[in-house]
Amino acid sequence: MSHLPLTRASVEDAHALIQPHIHRTPVLTNTTLSSLASTPQTTDALKGTQWEGQQPANPKFKLFFKCENFQKIGAFKVRGAFHAVIRLIQERGIEEVRKSGVVTHSSGNHAQALALAAKSFQIPAHIVMPKISTPSKIAGTQAQGAIVHFSGSTAQEREAAVAEVIAQTGATLIPPYDHPNIILGQGTMALEIQKEVQELLQGNSELGVHGDVRGIDAVIAPCGGGGMLSGIAVALHDTGVKVFSAEPSFQGGDDARRGVEAGERITTVKTLTIADGLRTPLGEYTWKIISDKSYVKGLYAVTEQNIKDAMKLVLERMKCFVEPSAVVGLATILYNENFRKMVEQEAPEEGWNIGVVFSGGNTTIDAITKMFADVPEETKEREEGVLGSDGKRVAENVAG
Amino acid sequence: MSHLPLTRASVEDAHALIQPHIHRTPVLTNTTLSSLASTPQTTDALKGTQWEGQQPANPKFKLFFKCENFQKIGAFKVRGAFHAVIRLIQERGIEEVRKSGVVTHSSGNHAQALALAAKSFQIPAHIVMPKISTPSKIAGTQAQGAIVHFSGSTAQEREAAVAEVIAQTGATLIPPYDHPNIILGQGTMALEIQKEVQELLQGNSELGVHGDVRGIDAVIAPCGGGGMLSGIAVALHDTGVKVFSAEPSFQGGDDARRGVEAGERITTVKTLTIADGLRTPLGEYTWKIISDKSYVKGLYAVTEQNIKDAMKLVLERMKCFVEPSAVVGLATILYNENFRKMVEQEAPEEGWNIGVVFSGGNTTIDAITKMFADVPEETKEREEGVLGSDGKRVAENVAG
Repeated sequence: MSHLPLTRASVEDAHALIQPHIHRTPVLTNTTLSSLASTPQTTDALKGTQWEGQQPANPKFKLFFKCENFQKIGAFKVRGAFHAVIRLIQERGIEEVRKSGVVTHSSGNHAQALALAAKSFQIPAHIVMPKISTPSKIAGTQAQGAIVHFSGSTAQEREAAVAEVIAQTGATLIPPYDHPNIILGQGTMALEIQKEVQELLQGNSELGVHGDVRGIDAVIAPCGGGGMLSGIAVALHDTGVKVFSAEPSFQGGDDARRGVEAGERITTVKTLTIADGLRTPLGEYTWKIISDKSYVKGLYAVTEQNIKDAMKLVLERMKCFVEPSAVVGLATILYNENFRKMVEQEAPEEGWNIGVVFSGGNTTIDAITKMFADVPEETKEREEGVLGSDGKRVAENVAG
Repeated sequence: MSHLPLTRASVEDAHALIQPHIHRTPVLTNTTLSSLASTPQTTDALKGTQWEGQQPANPKFKLFFKCENFQKIGAFKVRGAFHAVIRLIQERGIEEVRKSGVVTHSSGNHAQALALAAKSFQIPAHIVMPKISTPSKIAGTQAQGAIVHFSGSTAQEREAAVAEVIAQTGATLIPPYDHPNIILGQGTMALEIQKEVQELLQGNSELGVHGDVRGIDAVIAPCGGGGMLSGIAVALHDTGVKVFSAEPSFQGGDDARRGVEAGERITTVKTLTIADGLRTPLGEYTWKIISDKSYVKGLYAVTEQNIKDAMKLVLERMKCFVEPSAVVGLATILYNENFRKMVEQEAPEEGWNIGVVFSGGNTTIDAITKMFADVPEETKEREEGVLGSDGKRVAENVAG
């Protein structure tokens, strides 16, 4: 596949192409969560963390949640998949693509996204999945009309299976993140965030906007392979809107952050973080963008407990069903003191309007049950901490 | 408190009064769930039910979900509470009401709603709660600025505690459902459903509207004490929009349905249904409306398993966090063959556009974990059943 230059103009072109095929997902606000983010953590909450004994930061935020959990197939991945497929059709012609098809190796959201995009254009989609995938996942992919090929579980075995499919069918590989057309497709959500926040701020004086509408100041997004984060960074480059990365720190899952700190891309990650969409290292294209400070201003990481705490808040207070990977941005805003101190210093007095990307909602009640089963009682009480009328973080049972 | 007549015009007046204080909650659609509702159940699924051996019905639906789980305090109850408080202020004057306050006995959503409404007008709110309420619920009510009074757990003990508060403070009792001002307040959501569905149908040709926009044909809502259902029925009376009731059948929780069938109000209900907001019998006002066929066209009930199945679909497919009481309407549409056969007979070929009220989202991950912990494996597989590309209900992992 050829591709367009990695610029905002290309993201705008991508948006025009994919718009008929995707949902324009809502941007939601939540008074409780914005207040909580704008309230210092207690010194108790910092005990046992790297910030123990420090004065908790006091940043101000208005949070704008981009709900890609409401996107088709339940995740942002359809943006890149539709864009890549449409570009392929433009390049080769629909007949040729229908003859040869597309292929990817994934058992996750990208596979579902590619299957849907292919089905929309009556193109065969070959999905290579490990033999050990859960039956419901295999059935789900087949129900989307995709042709499932089984492989072993290692990266080598999966790549060999893909090579075989290509040899047999001539299918084109649509990679999950490290391709400019994928990056440009994912970046389209940044255009929607800017527009939707603008609309919300203009239409709603309750949000405390005075005089000119300032719009969005920053966006924070989860980073796994980095396709979405790079796309957002490309879309917002030179617009004055700052872009930040959020990752899980568990077992070195913050490979992008560590790589940027060390000045060298980390190419292998082995983490079993609950944020299972973010277990992947950066690719070549995504590294180039994400390691450039003029694109991504800062990279932050959060703990597994931070992710669970944030997830509980999003489910119970916002009433939004999200997957763990989706909340690492919110977790950073709420619990990462480095990020909070930076915002306290850099933001104007009224704080930042920040876009927070909820990347997807593809989890199950079963998975959530398991995730929260081993939380000790003490932590549970802390999890319930929300802002009280006295301005401290206390228990409360109130939405938006 | 005096009150207006129970008419659509009164609901419109109520709406004008409360609109500045409540969220206009969204109406959401979901392709997967509308398709599932428009697909016959399998004969296997009917085994062990009262419909075993019968031909499954084949109705057509477009579902429009009114998401009161996104409402302030996470439930529709703020509508009635704000309306009752504003009417009280109009009648007595704000100074008088600020002196004496308002009172209710509830540990649930109505208490939270009344506390919020009272706080908005700097009125003291007295909430009588059983001593055995969970600490987080007590703290939550206090964090809303309410004055919590403790009582024993029986209805008599709670009423005695309320009488004492009234004797001491002169506070006005705001009952949770059986009062015209509460009923009129809850009914306001029906006006929004009509308007929002109209907007959706006009703006979206994908929904398959041809020629004139027909709008909504019916609304189905959960029925506990019946405040919300009566309000909706009053708002839609003589408009041509049919109103239906949904209840849990467990341990006689379908008291409204049974009462209407027998021609006499059932005044005591003892059920531990997971739909814990619907454990209440009808009151005098709500019975009068709900037992009148010109207001509520039919009453239906669903099993605990139906509720769990529907809840799983709403969380995992729609990505909406709802409480069990909220999904009895959807459960009726998906699983109650009496309802489905009736729609198959009564609806035009293209089916019904039906408003489905999600009444609230106030549950916790803990509660959901407990609820799904005892589901046998076999049932789980059935729960995962969703519409496949072959038109049968099979496993799939795709959001709207």
